[in-house]
Amino acid sequence: MTTATSSGPQHRPAELLARARTILEPVLRESVGALPEPLRRMAGYHFGWWDARGAATNADSGKALRPALAIAAATACGALPTAATPAAAAVELVHNFTLVHDDVMDADENRRGRPAVWKVWGTTNAVLVGDALHALAGQVLAQQLPAALAAAAIDRLERTVVELCRGQYLDCCSKTDWDISDCERMALGKTGALMGCACAMGALCAGAGDSVIAALDRFGRNLGLAFQFIDDLIGIWGDPEVSGKPTNDLAHHKLSLPVVAALRSGTPAARELANLYRSEKSLSAPDIARAAALIELAGGRQLTRRVADERVAAAIAALPDRSAAADLIALAYLVAHRCA
Amino acid sequence: MTTATSSGPQHRPAELLARARTILEPVLRESVGALPEPLRRMAGYHFGWWDARGAATNADSGKALRPALAIAAATACGALPTAATPAAAAVELVHNFTLVHDDVMDADENRRGRPAVWKVWGTTNAVLVGDALHALAGQVLAQQLPAALAAAAIDRLERTVVELCRGQYLDCCSKTDWDISDCERMALGKTGALMGCACAMGALCAGAGDSVIAALDRFGRNLGLAFQFIDDLIGIWGDPEVSGKPTNDLAHHKLSLPVVAALRSGTPAARELANLYRSEKSLSAPDIARAAALIELAGGRQLTRRVADERVAAAIAALPDRSAAADLIALAYLVAHRCA
Repeated sequence: MTTATSSGPQHRPAELLARARTILEPVLRESVGALPEPLRRMAGYHFGWWDARGAATNADSGKALRPALAIAAATACGALPTAATPAAAAVELVHNFTLVHDDVMDADENRRGRPAVWKVWGTTNAVLVGDALHALAGQVLAQQLPAALAAAAIDRLERTVVELCRGQYLDCCSKTDWDISDCERMALGKTGALMGCACAMGALCAGAGDSVIAALDRFGRNLGLAFQFIDDLIGIWGDPEVSGKPTNDLAHHKLSLPVVAALRSGTPAARELANLYRSEKSLSAPDIARAAALIELAGGRQLTRRVADERVAAAIAALPDRSAAADLIALAYLVAHRCA
Repeated sequence: MTTATSSGPQHRPAELLARARTILEPVLRESVGALPEPLRRMAGYHFGWWDARGAATNADSGKALRPALAIAAATACGALPTAATPAAAAVELVHNFTLVHDDVMDADENRRGRPAVWKVWGTTNAVLVGDALHALAGQVLAQQLPAALAAAAIDRLERTVVELCRGQYLDCCSKTDWDISDCERMALGKTGALMGCACAMGALCAGAGDSVIAALDRFGRNLGLAFQFIDDLIGIWGDPEVSGKPTNDLAHHKLSLPVVAALRSGTPAARELANLYRSEKSLSAPDIARAAALIELAGGRQLTRRVADERVAAAIAALPDRSAAADLIALAYLVAHRCA
């Protein structure tokens, strides 16, 4: 079992993410590299390896938080980090399949600082690339895990895909009469389910028993909720330079937890915010600034921060053996202290 | 091993399809029924079980040819028909996932005589329903097959999904300078791969060895090519009342094998057809009639019929033990004698 003593807890999360990327990348490149053209090139572009013409680049491939969670869950169960390689690759493939499809559905033009796949090759090709990445996730598990583990892992992963679909559905049909539990349901589908799956599959790869797998699933789901709520704060108050999110969530009337909590507060600020959100148009820069101030005034920012902290605490409380879980705790620390 | 003697070969294919639907439906209904709403309702609508509000209907669920192939492949290997139930359900789920996505990409408004899912609930929901059906296919295999078979079956199924994506890509970017091998490549991806997979997975469920599985994959791929080419003939000369295809393929300049064979024939009819296809607009009814006559004149209809017959013969020649394969041969007979 590795510990956090070598470099101190503040450096540990970055090392864990870097380790995950190192373990992950050869498997991802081999898997994606076996796709027929042009699916291979479009997928590799999405992962930041190539430009749209297929020339090598070094663009952002994503943080690899989910793979890092899978690997940390495996080491928490006494296995080597590489035991979780198939799980790490499969959750990253599923995460990216949903990103490619979500960008189509949400008409998000940019992903990790570059044009989204649909923006470069059209929506048809983006749907096909997402479908192919989804297929690769099942293949990686079927090919690289012992048969007895593969079936359990695939069953869990595909159940999670259904949860992700349901979360994306909720996101697309969110309404201003939502309450906080609606936000939690959406966040569990969009983010919690796959982080829970990553941890559970890491434990599964390590040969853990059902109760440990279930506990790590709870850890990941709670951490995923915290991640999403902090993401919601960053979407409003984050520095676009740091967060990589060029557009404020408020511009498009996004119904994240801070907004919903503010709208449900029964305060005068809630009523003014509801009026701003009633408009059909994108909010202007002054409107965005006013809406952010109103959300803060109505307590939405504070409540979201509190709920996120509670979820981090619940995640850590779910761990079956904290003494073995330094890496998971370090990643929880990373999620809890993302800026905003 | 069942034989065709009870009702004669001419009735046998309909019985095999009916048996497949009987075996398949409870598994499909249980699998789709476990989806969260509204994905469950939208998927059940697509399968013809419910109307858009969720009330029971008895609409067309599809022929179940792929499940029938999986079951017939299992019985050809000495197993009971129900041994292939997970394979039958998985291939049908994948087939329907691709139909739901293809309808979005091709903007096809109708499916089996009713509005397509995207036409009722929009493209976002249709993409999500397709993604969820894809996930269910993996789950069915992971849950219902012995672990040792599940991993092999899922690996094969997901490889097939990648081939389907590639086939759909080719369909979407087909060009008038295509030759016959391009048509064959597209047909193999769009239709041959999944029919091969259905047969191979049926054999796999029956515990067959690798060489038998490979032979049944070849049988299914060849049959799938024949199916696609006959579908191409039906798309031009079929009776819409019988085929359920309301629009002639020529209207939208579809590049199917009869068209490509005609365009490549070097005849005066080829040049006149190329001129008709050069227009950007949908073809009018008189133009469609003229194009069909030109294709026939240039030999495209005859060549397609011949290639389809050769593929049926190649399918049957690929069977390792024809004496045990009466059901597969009956299904090949059905494919060969579809009207057009």
